[in-house]
Amino acid sequence: MEEGDIFAPVFDAHGLLPVIVTAAETGEVLMFAHMNDEALARTIDTGEAHFWSRSRNALWRKGETSGNTLRVVEIRTDCDQDVLWLTAEMTGAGACCHTGRLSCFYRAVPFGAGAGGKLVMVHAERHFDPDAIYGGPSKTKL
Amino acid sequence: MEEGDIFAPVFDAHGLLPVIVTAAETGEVLMFAHMNDEALARTIDTGEAHFWSRSRNALWRKGETSGNTLRVVEIRTDCDQDVLWLTAEMTGAGACCHTGRLSCFYRAVPFGAGAGGKLVMVHAERHFDPDAIYGGPSKTKL
Repeated sequence: MEEGDIFAPVFDAHGLLPVIVTAAETGEVLMFAHMNDEALARTIDTGEAHFWSRSRNALWRKGETSGNTLRVVEIRTDCDQDVLWLTAEMTGAGACCHTGRLSCFYRAVPFGAGAGGKLVMVHAERHFDPDAIYGGPSKTKL
Repeated sequence: MEEGDIFAPVFDAHGLLPVIVTAAETGEVLMFAHMNDEALARTIDTGEAHFWSRSRNALWRKGETSGNTLRVVEIRTDCDQDVLWLTAEMTGAGACCHTGRLSCFYRAVPFGAGAGGKLVMVHAERHFDPDAIYGGPSKTKL
């Protein structure tokens, strides 16, 4: 498992695997999501990131609504094969987050002595208008 | 939640938050673990990464056995505040994985047309001897 070259992904009790996505160009963490076995198989087959939406209970090709797909550059598995790391290129508007921002991780958390507790905006800019793309407040943000 | 500057981390049903750790120097993903509220509070207070070990059901200061601690450079939260991304500097042997390797993500998964299925070793080198540090095969790899 830890030393071999056999890919044997370990899905959790819900049949899911956590997936970290980083940007090929900058290394920035773009998003965090889950894959089931079908999403993983489609990602491996097509080189396009697919996930399992836990909120919608449905297979999800990233960008199927917004056009902001993810082209896989590298897939890595961790020591105990229960997490994946995808390095990917963004297509479309260059935004990965459903809020229209480059990354879902657009706010920093203060830490250390005297940390005030207020989040600090790192990526304010929206690369698309989420209301226009997703049709207003919605849970189907693909 | 998504637009404000209030830090309101959303722990899962087990009281845990998934945490992605990347290397400040290279941007490489080093590890993936979980924090409970105490691990998060200690990380914020001390600037040293603390986690919750699900296998041992215990608070865990990364590197408390191996000496390979993580000095936090930045903490970010995602859009719905249920995942954290830590950027950190490694101390000690420069290894984050309990196998002695730089990163837990030391193997690549082939994908695309004709992908063979065999994992490809990316980081073979061990920066410490896990048996010497952890006293042989063990589940307490801190």
